[in-house]
Amino acid sequence: VVAFSSGNHAQAVAGAAKHFGVPAVIVMPADAPRFKIEATKSHGAEIVLYDRIKDDREAIGRAISEERGLTLVKPFDDPDIIAGQGTVGLEIAEEVEKLDAALICTSGGGLTAGCAIALKARFPHCAVYGVEPAEHDDFARSLKAGARVKNAPGVRSICDALMSEQVGEYPFALAKAHDIQAVSVSDDEVRAAMRFAAMELKLVVEPGGAVGLAALMAGRIAAQGKRIGVVLSGGNVDAEMMREVLP
Amino acid sequence: VVAFSSGNHAQAVAGAAKHFGVPAVIVMPADAPRFKIEATKSHGAEIVLYDRIKDDREAIGRAISEERGLTLVKPFDDPDIIAGQGTVGLEIAEEVEKLDAALICTSGGGLTAGCAIALKARFPHCAVYGVEPAEHDDFARSLKAGARVKNAPGVRSICDALMSEQVGEYPFALAKAHDIQAVSVSDDEVRAAMRFAAMELKLVVEPGGAVGLAALMAGRIAAQGKRIGVVLSGGNVDAEMMREVLP
Repeated sequence: VVAFSSGNHAQAVAGAAKHFGVPAVIVMPADAPRFKIEATKSHGAEIVLYDRIKDDREAIGRAISEERGLTLVKPFDDPDIIAGQGTVGLEIAEEVEKLDAALICTSGGGLTAGCAIALKARFPHCAVYGVEPAEHDDFARSLKAGARVKNAPGVRSICDALMSEQVGEYPFALAKAHDIQAVSVSDDEVRAAMRFAAMELKLVVEPGGAVGLAALMAGRIAAQGKRIGVVLSGGNVDAEMMREVLP
Repeated sequence: VVAFSSGNHAQAVAGAAKHFGVPAVIVMPADAPRFKIEATKSHGAEIVLYDRIKDDREAIGRAISEERGLTLVKPFDDPDIIAGQGTVGLEIAEEVEKLDAALICTSGGGLTAGCAIALKARFPHCAVYGVEPAEHDDFARSLKAGARVKNAPGVRSICDALMSEQVGEYPFALAKAHDIQAVSVSDDEVRAAMRFAAMELKLVVEPGGAVGLAALMAGRIAAQGKRIGVVLSGGNVDAEMMREVLP
């Protein structure tokens, strides 16, 4: 298999490939956190680095797939991947009796779209929010425009896991079909959420995985008296950043 | 209610008292981590501090109980508390099909004894280990001596939650009846376990809660090919210590 990803999907594909005994090539941005690259390598995957600004990771992935006869496993713009990521929403739906809203980290939108399908099936009135970094709010702008728009190239946020160029085609169609809304959070709000997660929830969450909690804590949606589901997805944070966010 | 505890039992009793709307007085060591005292206060409890070396916390608790007509809730030497703490073992027993051994943080021994009852009922051949700081190994010495012995006063370890003077009467009787064994770990082994918990398991665990994982990582018991249950209990760690244990 071959996959492109900044880290979490990379490790998931590499781990699954190892489990099933098939070779894996992972295309990762050269500026991805070092330990994400190392973690992916540790699963036995071959790593191909690319330049986030200049290169087209999808083209690189497709070329490797064709040259070497490997199956391309996209990180979000694929119905099977969306269904797999949606099992997070299924787990939430199975555990609670009632849900008024859900806050889900959004970049390519696969996790958000998959969770929305699962949650809306059980709780038709549940509001589903895709949460993205404020500097990287293509999802909000796409919903407003009625068509997918891109993020400015080179824009950065501490949420390295949420840096895809734009929301995927399938996720965007599902977002419109399931009435997903968008909210955004600042890097400082994300840091505050990571701090709260570590000190109060006792969980180590990476920036991109903490945006939902950040949106809740920053009062981005009306929460009083409501039951809100928050997805905390991704714990690939290095020690330096953990030290920085601790009180 | 009135209770004496260095932190975790203190917060549990204070939280339960708040929930049921009854007043709580918590007797805590003056050198308990500041944030444990603050967390207990935040549940609305009245705090009475004592000197860990000079004072007898049980006598203080009993005196307050008699003077003010409050029920004394002991941290471990009480059959009801042991049964409550044993629900941790019940949860493990319900979740797995097979268990060869369990590693449980031990100080007064209530959690260990309660878990042993639950685990041995389902898995009669499961080995249950109480894990304690090496400098504070009264449980191991008590088992060896066949009678409860005390720790030297003033002995310290980073495991502030495991500093009781000796194993309780009920827990010790149960340890003998259920064939509980003892292993111990050094402070450095505990730090390594906290680091692993944060970076790999994505969990913030306090020193006293990490001793079971430390024992497993240090090879204190034969683990190869076995299914081992490890209780990670307590996340009351301050930011300074977290910074210290991070890689």
